[in-house]
Amino acid sequence: MIERYSLSPMKDLWTEEAKYQRWLRVELAVNDALAELGQIPKDAAKIIKEKARLNIARAHEIEAQISHDFLAFVRSLEESVGLEGRYIHRGLTSYDAEDTALSLALRDGLNFLIGDAKKLADILKRRALEHKKTLMIGRTHGMHAEPITFGLKLLIWYDEMRRNIKRLEDARAIASVGKISGSVGTYANVDPEVERQVCAQLGLEPANISNQILQRDRHAHVLTTLAICAGTVEKIATEIRNLHRTEIAEVREGRPHGSSSMPHKQNPSACETLTGLARIVRANALASIENMPVWHEQDLTRSSVERIIIPDSFIVTDYLLKRMAGVIEHLQVNVERMRANLEQSLGTIISQAILLKLIDKGMARAQAHDLMGELSKQAIAQQKPLKSLVSAHPEIKKFLNPTEIDEFFSPGYLERYHTKHVETIFARFA
Amino acid sequence: MIERYSLSPMKDLWTEEAKYQRWLRVELAVNDALAELGQIPKDAAKIIKEKARLNIARAHEIEAQISHDFLAFVRSLEESVGLEGRYIHRGLTSYDAEDTALSLALRDGLNFLIGDAKKLADILKRRALEHKKTLMIGRTHGMHAEPITFGLKLLIWYDEMRRNIKRLEDARAIASVGKISGSVGTYANVDPEVERQVCAQLGLEPANISNQILQRDRHAHVLTTLAICAGTVEKIATEIRNLHRTEIAEVREGRPHGSSSMPHKQNPSACETLTGLARIVRANALASIENMPVWHEQDLTRSSVERIIIPDSFIVTDYLLKRMAGVIEHLQVNVERMRANLEQSLGTIISQAILLKLIDKGMARAQAHDLMGELSKQAIAQQKPLKSLVSAHPEIKKFLNPTEIDEFFSPGYLERYHTKHVETIFARFA
Amino acid sequence: MIERYSLSPMKDLWTEEAKYQRWLRVELAVNDALAELGQIPKDAAKIIKEKARLNIARAHEIEAQISHDFLAFVRSLEESVGLEGRYIHRGLTSYDAEDTALSLALRDGLNFLIGDAKKLADILKRRALEHKKTLMIGRTHGMHAEPITFGLKLLIWYDEMRRNIKRLEDARAIASVGKISGSVGTYANVDPEVERQVCAQLGLEPANISNQILQRDRHAHVLTTLAICAGTVEKIATEIRNLHRTEIAEVREGRPHGSSSMPHKQNPSACETLTGLARIVRANALASIENMPVWHEQDLTRSSVERIIIPDSFIVTDYLLKRMAGVIEHLQVNVERMRANLEQSLGTIISQAILLKLIDKGMARAQAHDLMGELSKQAIAQQKPLKSLVSAHPEIKKFLNPTEIDEFFSPGYLERYHTKHVETIFARFA
Amino acid sequence: MIERYSLSPMKDLWTEEAKYQRWLRVELAVNDALAELGQIPKDAAKIIKEKARLNIARAHEIEAQISHDFLAFVRSLEESVGLEGRYIHRGLTSYDAEDTALSLALRDGLNFLIGDAKKLADILKRRALEHKKTLMIGRTHGMHAEPITFGLKLLIWYDEMRRNIKRLEDARAIASVGKISGSVGTYANVDPEVERQVCAQLGLEPANISNQILQRDRHAHVLTTLAICAGTVEKIATEIRNLHRTEIAEVREGRPHGSSSMPHKQNPSACETLTGLARIVRANALASIENMPVWHEQDLTRSSVERIIIPDSFIVTDYLLKRMAGVIEHLQVNVERMRANLEQSLGTIISQAILLKLIDKGMARAQAHDLMGELSKQAIAQQKPLKSLVSAHPEIKKFLNPTEIDEFFSPGYLERYHTKHVETIFARFA
Repeated sequence: MIERYSLSPMKDLWTEEAKYQRWLRVELAVNDALAELGQIPKDAAKIIKEKARLNIARAHEIEAQISHDFLAFVRSLEESVGLEGRYIHRGLTSYDAEDTALSLALRDGLNFLIGDAKKLADILKRRALEHKKTLMIGRTHGMHAEPITFGLKLLIWYDEMRRNIKRLEDARAIASVGKISGSVGTYANVDPEVERQVCAQLGLEPANISNQILQRDRHAHVLTTLAICAGTVEKIATEIRNLHRTEIAEVREGRPHGSSSMPHKQNPSACETLTGLARIVRANALASIENMPVWHEQDLTRSSVERIIIPDSFIVTDYLLKRMAGVIEHLQVNVERMRANLEQSLGTIISQAILLKLIDKGMARAQAHDLMGELSKQAIAQQKPLKSLVSAHPEIKKFLNPTEIDEFFSPGYLERYHTKHVETIFARFA
Repeated sequence: MIERYSLSPMKDLWTEEAKYQRWLRVELAVNDALAELGQIPKDAAKIIKEKARLNIARAHEIEAQISHDFLAFVRSLEESVGLEGRYIHRGLTSYDAEDTALSLALRDGLNFLIGDAKKLADILKRRALEHKKTLMIGRTHGMHAEPITFGLKLLIWYDEMRRNIKRLEDARAIASVGKISGSVGTYANVDPEVERQVCAQLGLEPANISNQILQRDRHAHVLTTLAICAGTVEKIATEIRNLHRTEIAEVREGRPHGSSSMPHKQNPSACETLTGLARIVRANALASIENMPVWHEQDLTRSSVERIIIPDSFIVTDYLLKRMAGVIEHLQVNVERMRANLEQSLGTIISQAILLKLIDKGMARAQAHDLMGELSKQAIAQQKPLKSLVSAHPEIKKFLNPTEIDEFFSPGYLERYHTKHVETIFARFA
Repeated sequence: MIERYSLSPMKDLWTEEAKYQRWLRVELAVNDALAELGQIPKDAAKIIKEKARLNIARAHEIEAQISHDFLAFVRSLEESVGLEGRYIHRGLTSYDAEDTALSLALRDGLNFLIGDAKKLADILKRRALEHKKTLMIGRTHGMHAEPITFGLKLLIWYDEMRRNIKRLEDARAIASVGKISGSVGTYANVDPEVERQVCAQLGLEPANISNQILQRDRHAHVLTTLAICAGTVEKIATEIRNLHRTEIAEVREGRPHGSSSMPHKQNPSACETLTGLARIVRANALASIENMPVWHEQDLTRSSVERIIIPDSFIVTDYLLKRMAGVIEHLQVNVERMRANLEQSLGTIISQAILLKLIDKGMARAQAHDLMGELSKQAIAQQKPLKSLVSAHPEIKKFLNPTEIDEFFSPGYLERYHTKHVETIFARFA
Repeated sequence: MIERYSLSPMKDLWTEEAKYQRWLRVELAVNDALAELGQIPKDAAKIIKEKARLNIARAHEIEAQISHDFLAFVRSLEESVGLEGRYIHRGLTSYDAEDTALSLALRDGLNFLIGDAKKLADILKRRALEHKKTLMIGRTHGMHAEPITFGLKLLIWYDEMRRNIKRLEDARAIASVGKISGSVGTYANVDPEVERQVCAQLGLEPANISNQILQRDRHAHVLTTLAICAGTVEKIATEIRNLHRTEIAEVREGRPHGSSSMPHKQNPSACETLTGLARIVRANALASIENMPVWHEQDLTRSSVERIIIPDSFIVTDYLLKRMAGVIEHLQVNVERMRANLEQSLGTIISQAILLKLIDKGMARAQAHDLMGELSKQAIAQQKPLKSLVSAHPEIKKFLNPTEIDEFFSPGYLERYHTKHVETIFARFA
């Protein structure tokens, strides 16, 4: 992933050095287990533990000759140890170490993301409480619908993030698995007990069964989960971009972004960036599902893909969650403008309340719906308040008296009517 | 979805009639709740319950005039009831009924898929036990690696299917949610208690919070889960296609498929079909994640997509799981051919066992690896048994005596060495 | 594809009957060629031509026995002819007829789409000319930028549609290809001259080389082209949805769509539907690229996918182009509102013009940019016209005199300054 | 893109430095044009040309303050020039330079890819000619079908690569376009003649019309084209992997790749890597189509995506084409094994030839097809040559005499019958 969207500590998890360190960690855990089980001499194991040194430059030199990155790593370790080094990687296939090490990275990466997601959720909840009663127009199809509060909008995102936290935890459980079962998963050359001890030492579950590798439904599960989290961020970002428009102006990014040509511009560029980046995580998720059908006991087609999409998806999702947390934290909310926008539809947003009253008073549903639709259209077309049209309509007068009509357009009606259950909803998240 | 890949009862869940029936079911549950809560007259509710008739033809006539399918449905119901019909859909928005009804379909569809998945898992396990000890070559990169048993291969798929069953159950939990919260989710026109009672009656959980709709991370979760299940089927299908090849011929579809030009052909066409269909489910999953960022409290962009991808993905995944169950059930396993193929690599598949022995006897790892690699290449190139080359090699003789070498190539060695832990692995699934 | 989004004549191209008719057409063209070349008896060929009858019901009966749809079709034909029927399909493989027939459908389908695209382009151009001088605010990042005309916006779409027409024509060229080369493309059982004559009769180019099938880069080329066309429609639809919002209200769908709960709603639902449907075509394009790597001389994995994605993508793209043509045709343009919205930014949209003048008068670029940015922010924050702030600023007064400042805010300035090259741009499309 | 898959000179095109150099190149071309047209003082333009220095470090410092990379670049240039620097970027918006510069990179990148593609095509053709007559079995559904030559297989790939070269050239034409039309494409602040001169100097076509940016159908066209090229490489790679298998062994990568555990392994790892990498280019293509619907005259959502997917797709496609050229160049073809594999199906691959003869002699098609199918199945099941079964069959004896039967199984029959048109096919590519 390009530097611009890479943040520590997530990006540090995916450096080449970090990968080699994880490989070493697994090989040393295997060394411990083999010695413990008496399968290699205890003295040799001790020497390996003392002397084994990561020398990436040397590993690269060997790789240049033998074109196999993991085997080169093993040989460089063996060199650093001397004769006893021959016991390193005993009975293992590369992917015993590589896949187990990858699981460590997935687990740690998911831990970072769970932390990010919780932080974003916390901020969403805090700001939802802050704006629990901040009245604004709800919109469907981009058009004014009926009033909501800005707090409810934030609370929906909070609720979705809670589901994402659960998804990330489930993904972590499915990814935190190791395998030390040899070339084709039979333990022919390495005892199952080694796998058990190594996994225990590393904090992983041993896979129930494996072939040369861990099965890729696990990795697809992780990357589709990240794509759904990215989808949530894209959804929030899109909403903020829409509310940020000059004509709506209900929110503003705390640190908006200008233009090289037009000095007056204040753009929601963080949210634009995040909207776009979600596409990367989504496209990568697709490739991760394509990675599932590996030929026989292993093939390498998924390997080149994973070198790219796994680090990229983790780094970008981390960026998405963290940057969105900053956006929400610093989001400027223009409460007055929200109120002003509510007025723009000239009272037509009350049409449903009147409709229900007409039905209760005995008007047929279809007739009442058509009538209120017609009056609302007139109100907008003629830029007249709906109230005046309703009050003057002979058919409505048959069902509603002036006091009843006045009530719909009286001060505080929107709050009284539309937000009466807001506390109930918030109480569910207490 | 085209008829060819549509099976009952899954396909019946997604007919237009079934959809209207679900809409009716939700509206009647709302009717019950409104009457129970005294928000509409009990008598009227009773009349609605008695008289409300689904008349799809009439609904279509109305839709042709007003271009709104759900509103047309409501009006057709209202007509069937008469004046009391005005209480139908009271305080609701279309999506209160549509999304809650969709959740019913998702839940029922997931129940079918869970049933499919369990059946496939059962068959995989049964055949795994049948072939627990059936020796065959394991392959990596398409090349002979070391022996496995065919039962282990089946057991890996069984294990993966168990994870898929868990995923489907989790998806069902996330999808089995209703919402009766009105146009923008504020309950302004319908009491939260209605939602509670309706969901209880329908066997759904009420959403903690909603706007006009249920949030689309739920649906994306479902469709990505289906795509992962499809990926598992694709993986199994690809493996069978590979083992089915003329040159390998270790398995054969029970009912293979011929050619219009070449009378001798016996093709793995079921598995080819399944491999392809997985792409449909995968592509649809992507569209389902794109559906997440809905503008404001609802927009309709996801609606046209969902009309297509949700039924298609369920119907195709059902087909995938059921058809694969049939393939595994009837799969012909050629045990002799598996044994014969094992011989093709002239003993080179023992190279790792010898390598480890050489290391244990004191040879350096890199030297032993290079040496065994060289001898294996010679064996293949000269089509000579590895044993003869190993026995004659002066360097090896320094470390291994003839008895030790003979042991590697003795009858039953592959079973003794490579399958010694097969029972242990199977025991984990007891 | 579901009926709702299927229009004639496009949908009729993809019925099962139409497919069988194309198969018959190819087989009869082969019959003609074989007779012409003396490879089957002329009399037999004549009888085949007279007697061969499509009987789909009978073909299905046979298919139920032999599980091969094309072979069943051939046998049903043979039955309809009698003994001479044995010369039908002589030397051919199924895909000689199936792939050549598919090319006929692709060509005809592309012809429909080219017609659709030209019609949409024509309407876009006509409405662009109509609104050549209709001034409106240009927006970047959703924020007011500088004035444009609505005609320019339409003309950009017209220009893009012209590129799409070219793409569709290129795709038609690459798809209008036949192959009658036998089971593996060697012409072992059918003379190359047959292919030449059949293709000539059907209006296709013979493929330079084939194996059992035409290579799938051709089909991927077609479906990615459709996805790009769908992307253009999505782009136009998204723009109309944005301009349709209550707060912007610059355009309105001619036949907007209501709500079951809120009588006042007038939603841009056609454009929402089209936005969503583009996702289907895009996802299918991806599957079409996945179809490219067929194993060896043919496998069937792409077959199940193509049965679904090719008809669906053609039918949906046809719907997208036709429905968007209707939307543009009937789009209501609110010229007054466009003008009113221009005023909302209080003159700040002139900031660049002033910036350039300041630079020309000698102010440093960075200073001028910062200054105009600051004043614009103040104008918006304090809701004061930019003019008053500019006029009062001491630093600006050093570079600009009051007459110069007045000029920027004088009546007709936006037209004089921002639309001065509009005729030049339109002239490029004369 | 990670270093492992990045080759020069392609990767050098996408460094940050190269991007800034292109920006500078566009700004200096604008400077020339503005001076030439008398819109800035000629002396100032001369000083700018002499003094303007790229100082990326300084640009980054400014970016850290103002969070706008392009504006920071302009300010750093202005600093390097002094007071006359204020004329830099005069009347331009960032994307006048950024998008025009990106077009330069796309054009140059496509030139590299066209070179790569031609080289790969040349090698394919050369090796096709080399193996024009190398007989091997053609396979459909992974099963033996009828003989082909290895040259035909290579020639099909050559033909597909020729289509790809044409696609890349078309994509280059659509991408080689510049725009210098200002903030919203109206040329309000910069004369259209500047655009004309700048594009002429840079070797680009001026866009007929633009808004703030070039329309993204162009970029989607480029990236889908790359995905199709990647699909071709994936197809070739998949075929080589299949022919490379231990049981088939007809080809071998020139430099196969080993295993850390199993010294005997010789894997087709280059082709595995290439198969996987195609998924990256394909997934990116999808994101590029998603980038098409930009809001209004520009939004930034596509920007973050393009920073990643455009360089990645070019670098990976370059790697795919170059590495595949190496694979084909060094591919070891085992002609003897191809011949040996032909024998494995015991003569059943002649079944169609016999079928046609039986039909010509008067047997009904369905009967002949069923009969030959049955005998072929017996041959495989009993491992007997088809010839013996055909010769002994009473029904066949009625139509064919022993000499006729002998002919089908006589030495050289496969060549005489199946390759008789190979020269004709090759002649089409002379």
